[in-house]
Amino acid sequence: EIVEAVTNFFSKSDCLKGKKVLVTAGGTQEPLDPVRFLGNRSSGRMGYAIAQAMQEAGAETILVSAPTDLPVPNGVKRISVQTALEMHDVVLNNFSDMDVIVKAAAVADYRPATNAEQKIKKDGTNRTIELVPNPDILAELGRRKTSQVLIGFAAETENLLAYAQEKMHRKNVDLLVANDVTKPGAGFGSPTNIVSFLFPDGRRIDFPQMSKLEIARNLVEEIVNLLG
Amino acid sequence: EIVEAVTNFFSKSDCLKGKKVLVTAGGTQEPLDPVRFLGNRSSGRMGYAIAQAMQEAGAETILVSAPTDLPVPNGVKRISVQTALEMHDVVLNNFSDMDVIVKAAAVADYRPATNAEQKIKKDGTNRTIELVPNPDILAELGRRKTSQVLIGFAAETENLLAYAQEKMHRKNVDLLVANDVTKPGAGFGSPTNIVSFLFPDGRRIDFPQMSKLEIARNLVEEIVNLLG
Repeated sequence: EIVEAVTNFFSKSDCLKGKKVLVTAGGTQEPLDPVRFLGNRSSGRMGYAIAQAMQEAGAETILVSAPTDLPVPNGVKRISVQTALEMHDVVLNNFSDMDVIVKAAAVADYRPATNAEQKIKKDGTNRTIELVPNPDILAELGRRKTSQVLIGFAAETENLLAYAQEKMHRKNVDLLVANDVTKPGAGFGSPTNIVSFLFPDGRRIDFPQMSKLEIARNLVEEIVNLLG
Repeated sequence: EIVEAVTNFFSKSDCLKGKKVLVTAGGTQEPLDPVRFLGNRSSGRMGYAIAQAMQEAGAETILVSAPTDLPVPNGVKRISVQTALEMHDVVLNNFSDMDVIVKAAAVADYRPATNAEQKIKKDGTNRTIELVPNPDILAELGRRKTSQVLIGFAAETENLLAYAQEKMHRKNVDLLVANDVTKPGAGFGSPTNIVSFLFPDGRRIDFPQMSKLEIARNLVEEIVNLLG
């Protein structure tokens, strides 16, 4: 407890005091029926670490979280959602009041076209699931943003920097965090990550493997600069 | 710790000493690509409680677990799997050595026909996922069993007892645990459950809402009877 108190003391710089930050985290679940869903491997750890770092830096922090077993960081307000559509609505409803939005959630690009009311019974034959595209929340925020600082994530398994660069420009974000989820010590469920920060002016910062909380604290520093 | 020690003392009856028990738990994940999967809402809590109760009763306990964040119960040997096919192989490889098998896992009936090596990029249009049936592990065990006691689960959202009755006979299980996952205080993620035990001779025991560990201890008693 003393160690924690000391850590909190040193990490609390109040550099985001008075700022409102919304962080999204976790992987959305897109139901097929009351039991089955289309999911993804995001554990939510990166987003939760970011919400903690924002709160430690003095920001009023809202965490919009897809299902996860992680505890809510102290002082953070969590809003729980399950699907991409629910996340879309919560984020868009809060967007205009925010100074900073960090989209760390892994939002499903597609959802099943139908969500059965009762558990689908198997019949031993092949089946198909029809999928329809979900709204692209990050792109919508990129189009709507006025003074907000918008941070996006790209989790890729190949051609990371090329995809990330393209995504940053197409979605009009102010900083893109790129991470190759296939590297050992990076990505889903890991307490550490290996990321690069990409900026629209062409700057790129490559970080060595570090804890998700350390990455989150580096992100806070960059956000302070971006807020000017 | 004293309370826990006392609880352990009273619950440890050694009534399954010398018996080998295999318990499956959690929801399998059927990958579409390195990031996305078809999943289900099983938390694994019911299966983990059963493994704990078996171990407390003196059984040598193997827990074959789909992905979950739950801690391994003391003294239990956990084997981690992701997909229905992996669970099938581990269960079938261990089956002949076991005295009791409890299939508490929620195993996907279907898997995507193809598992892409790299993350699938979205293109904004509709898509379909082709699904192929997974092997029916419980039915296979029901056909192969000699002296083993076989316990199955039915988690339903409608017509629970009719489905459960039919499943018990079709799969040749010795006891079927039926639970309506739509009831409050029952089913996925809940620390409590509301179940019925069904037996091939027509007996049925309906339990009130109780903790998953209490249900597991009731299951131990019935297994002791079934082992004769």
